[in-house]
Amino acid sequence: MQYKVITDGGVTSAQGFVAGVCQAGIKKADRYDLTIIYSTSLAQAAGVFTTNKFQAAPVLLSKKHLVHKTGRALVINSGCANACTGETGFNDAFCMAEKTAEVLGLTPQEVFVASTGVIGVFLPMEKIKKGIKEAGESLSQDKGYLAAKAIMTTDTYPKELALEVEIGGKKVTIGAMAKGSGMIHPQMATMLGFITTDVNITAECLQKALSQANQNSFNMVTVDGDTSTNDMVIILANNLADNLLIDKEGSKEYNVFLDALTTVCTRLAQMIAEDGEGATKLMEVQVVNAVSEDDARKAAKSIAGSSLVKAALFGEDANWGRIICALGYSTAEFNPDTVDVYLGNLKVAKNGTGLIFDEVAAKKILAEKKVVIRVDLQQGVCQATAWGCDLSYDYVKINADYRT
Amino acid sequence: MQYKVITDGGVTSAQGFVAGVCQAGIKKADRYDLTIIYSTSLAQAAGVFTTNKFQAAPVLLSKKHLVHKTGRALVINSGCANACTGETGFNDAFCMAEKTAEVLGLTPQEVFVASTGVIGVFLPMEKIKKGIKEAGESLSQDKGYLAAKAIMTTDTYPKELALEVEIGGKKVTIGAMAKGSGMIHPQMATMLGFITTDVNITAECLQKALSQANQNSFNMVTVDGDTSTNDMVIILANNLADNLLIDKEGSKEYNVFLDALTTVCTRLAQMIAEDGEGATKLMEVQVVNAVSEDDARKAAKSIAGSSLVKAALFGEDANWGRIICALGYSTAEFNPDTVDVYLGNLKVAKNGTGLIFDEVAAKKILAEKKVVIRVDLQQGVCQATAWGCDLSYDYVKINADYRT
Repeated sequence: MQYKVITDGGVTSAQGFVAGVCQAGIKKADRYDLTIIYSTSLAQAAGVFTTNKFQAAPVLLSKKHLVHKTGRALVINSGCANACTGETGFNDAFCMAEKTAEVLGLTPQEVFVASTGVIGVFLPMEKIKKGIKEAGESLSQDKGYLAAKAIMTTDTYPKELALEVEIGGKKVTIGAMAKGSGMIHPQMATMLGFITTDVNITAECLQKALSQANQNSFNMVTVDGDTSTNDMVIILANNLADNLLIDKEGSKEYNVFLDALTTVCTRLAQMIAEDGEGATKLMEVQVVNAVSEDDARKAAKSIAGSSLVKAALFGEDANWGRIICALGYSTAEFNPDTVDVYLGNLKVAKNGTGLIFDEVAAKKILAEKKVVIRVDLQQGVCQATAWGCDLSYDYVKINADYRT
Repeated sequence: MQYKVITDGGVTSAQGFVAGVCQAGIKKADRYDLTIIYSTSLAQAAGVFTTNKFQAAPVLLSKKHLVHKTGRALVINSGCANACTGETGFNDAFCMAEKTAEVLGLTPQEVFVASTGVIGVFLPMEKIKKGIKEAGESLSQDKGYLAAKAIMTTDTYPKELALEVEIGGKKVTIGAMAKGSGMIHPQMATMLGFITTDVNITAECLQKALSQANQNSFNMVTVDGDTSTNDMVIILANNLADNLLIDKEGSKEYNVFLDALTTVCTRLAQMIAEDGEGATKLMEVQVVNAVSEDDARKAAKSIAGSSLVKAALFGEDANWGRIICALGYSTAEFNPDTVDVYLGNLKVAKNGTGLIFDEVAAKKILAEKKVVIRVDLQQGVCQATAWGCDLSYDYVKINADYRT
């Protein structure tokens, strides 16, 4: 598949999408903490959400609004998760949608709401309402980057991306932004991710494509094994690309769109892992030749999530026994006697037993910013990739005093 | 139940048990690294083992020997796990049993073998054989403490315990030792634990009692979520207490023994959590009023295992939202709207929503060496307790260069 990556592209790269931002004062002074993404025409909408039993108020509200399968705007704040805030929290989330609708001339049901930050704290609603007005009045096409900045918490850089793909002879653009960092272990949903596209597609196909792309991208990231209360990814598709309507899962055009969407989600997922709290390295775990894709996914995610593998990576120690150990408790089906393990291209274990390998070469591989761990189960033909990061002193530091 | 704790008691406190130790040179110089526990008469034997798919050679061998349900000796080394070592590793484990049997005048099948240390490295068999001879020739009743020292890896202190209980008018003693520290997240089995008792009991009842005690003690400990390849607990009961044979699960005498055994296992489990790699605090998570014991266990273990809860504990930060979050993804059944959370006796959340609480009081509770987190699900009558520790800089330090 040929994609054109749009330089400095993001959530306002697709036709008809603009963003507004402001410093509402929810986070510390001088930091953007509220953003509105707006589609100039009605968009098909789809979403995936956290499976945590405690679902934050904005998650509950956005799921409710998604019943209509269409939408016009997103309003997102950082600095406060509005989670575990009861009825007041739900009313606050609705008030955010209502205020955004008022400023933009929409109905509240056309607005999706997302929040990220500390759990169990109420939103400062006066600041939020003032901020929504300011952001709503500042909408423009050049604010994609600031929007990506406004949703950051402990992220060290904004995560955004856009690419172009040709579908049925028309140029389709997909733009996206995400925030990650800590409490990252999406189960059926993800951290915060927002995707905008001008593709012409039915809401049903859009939801299916998002769910499929999500499964092999955001759902394969882990930073610390903690599945958040606020995870969500929402996609808006406003059909301005004017391609022939995509209305059939599995059609050629659907598959082109799915591939492009998966590419966008995967790249964002990698950024999230790479910028995990305290991370110094990106870990990519490839599990190949598994009996089923599900087994490959379980195995890859178990290895990427192991505290001991992560600490060894930080210490650049080729302790492959920990990889084997995490594979062994992953609940994936496989035969322990046919497992090979590679660090980069260096084979360190064969048929479940250690090899004598070049420690200097291993050290060099582990010193890179990106480390690929490959596990060959030699059992079937399925594969999966997971992304994670190392476990450093800084992860402990950041999370020992997150609230203060 | 009345128990008498034996001062400085351990694995040689029960009648008829002696230990021998040596510095075989598997670990660094001047450290005990091999021990033999010997029963002067034939003992009933029972065991629980790791559920990791990669099972270390000594695990496979000890399971095989346990088929006979009786035994006379344990031989244990630290410094090398003999895991992922293939056929050579299995032969080495058998050789340990054979050499021990030769020195003590037993059959190899009467000897159980355990190893702990680095995965994927072969045992230095010449050193081991020499060490077994030395340890076997040094057997005495006063070496329980040194035996507990000999099985340590990154543990900072030996973990041992013994207590007396009256069963059917006879004094019964239960002695035990364990090692823990890292790669601690037993699933159906545990880290290394060895229990000796002079109780008179059938092998079937002994196995049932061990499995039951294990479920609420060792299986409720987590240090880092990593289930090891070498976990095992073995108990030997040599009937020298001369009580009437316990041969019925649920009988009064069985229950007295089960309670005493659970007490021993629980105390060792707490020591393991308290001495988790890099730990500065013991975390006890009590989940009460759950629908089932299984739900309570899932919930408690999920909270105790959360990296974010652990880091907050290290930072003495009353970030209860992370407790709620870990409960939410635990897969336990409960209603998010009826959950209360306490730090010590301080209520910080009610019905799933935050309370305004005294931060100074919270800080004081979190500054203690032992912190109790209590979660009241207000749904049923079942409960469970899990033990864990905080996540500190030292955990990262220890595991960034474990091999070197």
